[in-house]
Amino acid sequence: MPAPGDGVAVASGSVGAFEFDTDTAVERVGDGRYRAVVTDRWGVVGGAPNGGYLVALAARALAAALERPDPLTITAHFLTPPEPGPAELTVETLRRGGTTSTGALRLVEAGEPRLAVLASFGDLSRDSSVAYDAAPPPDLPPLDACVRADAGPLGDEVTIMQRLDARVHPDTVGWVWGQPGGTPQAGGWLRLADGREPDTAMLPLAVDAWAPTPLELGVLGWVPTIELTVHVRARPAPGWLRCWVRTRLVAGGFVEEDCDVWDARGRLVAMSRQLSRVRGLPG
Amino acid sequence: MPAPGDGVAVASGSVGAFEFDTDTAVERVGDGRYRAVVTDRWGVVGGAPNGGYLVALAARALAAALERPDPLTITAHFLTPPEPGPAELTVETLRRGGTTSTGALRLVEAGEPRLAVLASFGDLSRDSSVAYDAAPPPDLPPLDACVRADAGPLGDEVTIMQRLDARVHPDTVGWVWGQPGGTPQAGGWLRLADGREPDTAMLPLAVDAWAPTPLELGVLGWVPTIELTVHVRARPAPGWLRCWVRTRLVAGGFVEEDCDVWDARGRLVAMSRQLSRVRGLPG
Repeated sequence: MPAPGDGVAVASGSVGAFEFDTDTAVERVGDGRYRAVVTDRWGVVGGAPNGGYLVALAARALAAALERPDPLTITAHFLTPPEPGPAELTVETLRRGGTTSTGALRLVEAGEPRLAVLASFGDLSRDSSVAYDAAPPPDLPPLDACVRADAGPLGDEVTIMQRLDARVHPDTVGWVWGQPGGTPQAGGWLRLADGREPDTAMLPLAVDAWAPTPLELGVLGWVPTIELTVHVRARPAPGWLRCWVRTRLVAGGFVEEDCDVWDARGRLVAMSRQLSRVRGLPG
Repeated sequence: MPAPGDGVAVASGSVGAFEFDTDTAVERVGDGRYRAVVTDRWGVVGGAPNGGYLVALAARALAAALERPDPLTITAHFLTPPEPGPAELTVETLRRGGTTSTGALRLVEAGEPRLAVLASFGDLSRDSSVAYDAAPPPDLPPLDACVRADAGPLGDEVTIMQRLDARVHPDTVGWVWGQPGGTPQAGGWLRLADGREPDTAMLPLAVDAWAPTPLELGVLGWVPTIELTVHVRARPAPGWLRCWVRTRLVAGGFVEEDCDVWDARGRLVAMSRQLSRVRGLPG
């Protein structure tokens, strides 16, 4: 016999007919247990779901289980390559504090663990003070001087570019034309294509919506993410996000990518770092 | 009847009579189960064990359980304030891959969960290539122009300063004399006081061995860490480490601190980011 609340769809943030909300909805099926469908609508090269999309999906289940709206810090380790299809998410609540709560999540598809997550959630509407800010937004070219992300030679499986309106800094797209710029960087303007405004739920997607920076070093191989950590620092204002990804070290077959995200007010709203393996470096 | 291997002390890296190794030793008591003693020899203000010390202790158990020597990326969420005393560590192996293995750890003291950890380990001796390096070491004053960390008005409970030889950049210690410099930064030269050379096991300690950067903004309150992530990028050369901590945003009652660590060759060997709560900001 189902317990009260079973089968009720839950999701934090704004929910409507928007693609992001539909595709990250989770259904509660028990205590700390959720069901979801990993759609094929946020696919990257090869058709695998984007890592940031999966983290955003996991964040929905965590927000519901921890009963806190905003992901303050969320870390995901990618265990096996995820695929589109039904997923089971299990949240273990580790701590319920006065300001933050912490939980561990596992995302399983077809019996295979895909994602392990550790996160602390809170409520970023409680305190809007800014005591120190040395993080000005990047000086991006105007929108019409940037490159539309869907303009490149992407395969049909890169469905994420139908969901996003990304305007990429022209200094970061040399790899598209076979002329990598030599500086491992990425970024530009970003919004959701269907007009849904940004919130803290979609910021884990925003940090991972960019081409891997090693492409600008001439890397041709896959750059599989081992781990992605996102800090969300404020609820974003409506409008375009500005994102910038930089890499300082490619060594030992590993690369870090740091992405910062600013909202339309110029406020730094998220910072992420991911560690990936990198192969196929030019000799 | 004990299984083979039970009761055998295990620890990765160099082990000897050195304080760090003794105080991070873990004893295997079962499959993925370890016992350790959190000593009072790495205490910070108030006598609580330093967070980086606890992460280093957790890393010992993870290295043993995952059978990989080096922490590539390790994330800890601090659940309840740890104390000196006996600890139980449990590791769940989530993935054993060809290059990396991933595990989840819980550290429990007196029945209370203190630390939840998610980490991927590998072997950084397998590939020493450097494909891109835009991370030069900071330009620190010479050792004798820095401030010895044990010179300040620290209480007897800050025992970590007896274990470390830290030479602090003079531009970051205004808070000690009641004249905070206004820039949230920290860092300097670091080595273990008993002459033990750095390795990947001690780098999680090195990133967290510095005063909280909000002290330089005049913060007088506690700065409790919510989460700390450390990326270890190379095995350090013998000799002094150079460490630099910077903060870009103090907002909403939270602060991030990014610490980079270079070895004596000038190679970036670790980068960390932690998110903490911050209270007691000057009005």
